[in-house]
Amino acid sequence: MFEAAEVGRKLSKSDYKAQVPQLRSELLAVQQELLQAASFPVIVLFAGVDTAGKGETVNLLNEWMDPRWITTRGYTEPSSDERERPRLWRYWRDLPAHGSIAIFLSAWYSSPILDRVARRTTTAVFDSLLDQVAAFERTLTDDGAVIVKFWMHLSKNAQKERLKEFEKDPLQRWRVTKEQWKHWEMFDKFVSAADRAIRRTSTDAAQWHIVEGEDERYRTVAVATELRNAIRRGLERASSGRPERSPAVERKAAADGPVKAIRRVEREFNVLDNLDLSQKVSNDAFEKQLAEQHSRLNLLQRRAAKRGVSTILVFEGWDAAGKGGAIRRVTGSFDARDYQVIPIAAPTDEERAHHYLWRFWRHLSRAGRLTIFDRSWYGRVLVERVERFATEAEYVRGYGEINHFEEQLVNHGILLVKFWIHISKAEQLRRFKDRSGTSYKQWKITDDDWRNRKRWEDYTVAVNDMVERTSTKIAPWTLVEGNDKNFARIRVLRTLAERLDDRLKK
Amino acid sequence: MFEAAEVGRKLSKSDYKAQVPQLRSELLAVQQELLQAASFPVIVLFAGVDTAGKGETVNLLNEWMDPRWITTRGYTEPSSDERERPRLWRYWRDLPAHGSIAIFLSAWYSSPILDRVARRTTTAVFDSLLDQVAAFERTLTDDGAVIVKFWMHLSKNAQKERLKEFEKDPLQRWRVTKEQWKHWEMFDKFVSAADRAIRRTSTDAAQWHIVEGEDERYRTVAVATELRNAIRRGLERASSGRPERSPAVERKAAADGPVKAIRRVEREFNVLDNLDLSQKVSNDAFEKQLAEQHSRLNLLQRRAAKRGVSTILVFEGWDAAGKGGAIRRVTGSFDARDYQVIPIAAPTDEERAHHYLWRFWRHLSRAGRLTIFDRSWYGRVLVERVERFATEAEYVRGYGEINHFEEQLVNHGILLVKFWIHISKAEQLRRFKDRSGTSYKQWKITDDDWRNRKRWEDYTVAVNDMVERTSTKIAPWTLVEGNDKNFARIRVLRTLAERLDDRLKK
Repeated sequence: MFEAAEVGRKLSKSDYKAQVPQLRSELLAVQQELLQAASFPVIVLFAGVDTAGKGETVNLLNEWMDPRWITTRGYTEPSSDERERPRLWRYWRDLPAHGSIAIFLSAWYSSPILDRVARRTTTAVFDSLLDQVAAFERTLTDDGAVIVKFWMHLSKNAQKERLKEFEKDPLQRWRVTKEQWKHWEMFDKFVSAADRAIRRTSTDAAQWHIVEGEDERYRTVAVATELRNAIRRGLERASSGRPERSPAVERKAAADGPVKAIRRVEREFNVLDNLDLSQKVSNDAFEKQLAEQHSRLNLLQRRAAKRGVSTILVFEGWDAAGKGGAIRRVTGSFDARDYQVIPIAAPTDEERAHHYLWRFWRHLSRAGRLTIFDRSWYGRVLVERVERFATEAEYVRGYGEINHFEEQLVNHGILLVKFWIHISKAEQLRRFKDRSGTSYKQWKITDDDWRNRKRWEDYTVAVNDMVERTSTKIAPWTLVEGNDKNFARIRVLRTLAERLDDRLKK
Repeated sequence: MFEAAEVGRKLSKSDYKAQVPQLRSELLAVQQELLQAASFPVIVLFAGVDTAGKGETVNLLNEWMDPRWITTRGYTEPSSDERERPRLWRYWRDLPAHGSIAIFLSAWYSSPILDRVARRTTTAVFDSLLDQVAAFERTLTDDGAVIVKFWMHLSKNAQKERLKEFEKDPLQRWRVTKEQWKHWEMFDKFVSAADRAIRRTSTDAAQWHIVEGEDERYRTVAVATELRNAIRRGLERASSGRPERSPAVERKAAADGPVKAIRRVEREFNVLDNLDLSQKVSNDAFEKQLAEQHSRLNLLQRRAAKRGVSTILVFEGWDAAGKGGAIRRVTGSFDARDYQVIPIAAPTDEERAHHYLWRFWRHLSRAGRLTIFDRSWYGRVLVERVERFATEAEYVRGYGEINHFEEQLVNHGILLVKFWIHISKAEQLRRFKDRSGTSYKQWKITDDDWRNRKRWEDYTVAVNDMVERTSTKIAPWTLVEGNDKNFARIRVLRTLAERLDDRLKK
């Protein structure tokens, strides 16, 4: 793969001088257009062989463009705050907003490759880490992000010469550490891991560009030209409307199209209708069981906090299904320092300027705490689907994105418990009327609630699809029969206690 | 001071039962009103003697109110991310947005008091930390925040009995650690430090309420009632218009009123007019000096990064004064991983929902990096003053708030360098016309720029006042003669190099 980047490409001084002024002004111009349009972010990733010019090229891009709209990030060992979250958390935090450019150095490729080179991981683990990286990038490009990845290459001999040169230069000597020579000795292993990484993560939407790093002029112009082109392509696509969709999704969406008969059947036979809504718990039994579950959960959470096991709870359900009441019974079990409730309403403008999952990533807590989402990332496949805020391609893609997100949480050791609280249509009407009639409850009922009620059938299909596609072994849905509030609350508490108990046995 | 909280206040069960339902529904109601108004945040702070019921009361408040709009934060040892920023950074991060409630446990009082109890600090240091805390709270209340502080007290004997009780109870035993008994032995020292802390930080706008913690029913009702009253007072104040101002500021503002003659003189004699704008650097000299300063700065920054010394640069100046160009010459000296440029434009809605300094706190970098603000917190006393977005009381207060903010940065070891780039009114006109006439520069000139130009005199007065009040020994302003771009850029680079060199000698 790298042979083509060891052929000694060079750009003469005169060619360079002739090309650069125009290239610089074009880069500035596309950056301005990007900023004005503010409709997608640009992510530039540099990886490659040491001394192949990553740092120098990045500095030059910052000089040629307006550094106010560029963030450049290199990463060292994760801080304690970072170690307490899933691996990709620190990169999500640093993702640029629409209209901005972020330049990442090695970043999410660094530890997978270096761990493999040092044989700290098997090929199988390496592959799965690379697949996660590819899925991460796919999530971003599907949303319109432009990702440009440069692999800066040098041959083994060229690198050796470069290192020796640096050692002779008093201004560059500091750059050559023992580490660097150790890396050089592992050159072949490094290149073979890189080869695998590049092959496995070169997707149509986030291609790698292998750049021969020996000649400074050549590599600079090569990178700058490709970056200019990529931003231009992004701008053209954005101005022509929707973000590009992956062909696979297009096929899926097309196939989904004609099956209206199937939809009708789904509307009639769905997971929600199988629930027995007549189940009840008497007030006396409720008080007794509530106290039992509270002390059980309190003990479990203390053990979880000690072990650094975090829990994320997701509450979804019909309007007036009793999410708020159930959440209050859950929080009642715990010390207020140990949990945080995140109500999900309309996104803020900072959230709107990022991928829809960004706002959930930013709320991931430190180790050992509970985070309770009152509504969640499932909005993508529920309200956004039903209200057509998301296109079919977007919400269909959403299932995979959500599963991938949840997999990262669970792989990091987080317990994820998801509840859909179900009530009958008649029960909802009864509760709406009750709320309208009670002065201190009126704030709880809005026009939106009545409007959503009219879409009951559409929501039923959406909920059914959601459960079908996102109730995974690692993150199953618990469907809660909610007509009787006592029953629902005990069911929630008991489920949480059982799942937490199971998790702590691991 | 605590005698009044050792008298054995009790609330009978029947009184409690009679009062609580109404209190709960009133608390919920004021919380709802707060959320609807969304015009100020509520900060509730609990501190006090161990086992006096802090945790229990906080849990109950979370149960009585809607936990979705409450954040509760306890703090342990700072993480590495937190240690790399000034002491109050982690609390600024956790401040509630307008309309929300945050409950803090001990928080910013914890380490000052415990360090004093353990004699790790002198009285003088303790006092200065308390003054910093009082200034922090004043900054928030001046902006409309409601701060309610509860000191939960128990007598020494009552605490001993409480600890013994807990030790007997299998469900509570975990709470009594050796640490707790060690604290108990230092009870008198603790109480005397607390006494000092309470006296020194009880301000009109952020009073302490000492609550006797022995009887659970009494302390609960006492806290809940005071919290309800405080939120109500905040709502009344908010609905009557402007946030409450401190009497000192009112007096200052009143005194400032009539001195129009003085203002006229200030307009005529000001720091900017003393600058010699005819100074020039030829292109040849510029190239030579630029290269010199670049390599000097690059070396200095490498040493700074190694030592974890961060630098914050502030660029202010007239429109078209050349801030952007100067910033690019600065960034050109450094590795792109080491700096971040923060352009300050209109605040996002999340920023608008917090104190105006919050958006700057959130950008403080990890140790050893450069943060370059293209415009800054000085907007408060420049554009906000001139355009009357801030009242006179607000911008006058701003000088003190800014000095206090910068003091925290510098005390943390950060190097702060502030530039005002000055050009003459004629030079600005020349540059505006040049920009309008050059197609790829047109985006740089807006209607705002022409509007600001009409306010030249007002800005001159504002800049003069700003320099007079915020050019402190620890954070002086550098006024840069900007008519000649070469001269200005070299002056900026040289000043930065000298300041950084000085800082590294410490």
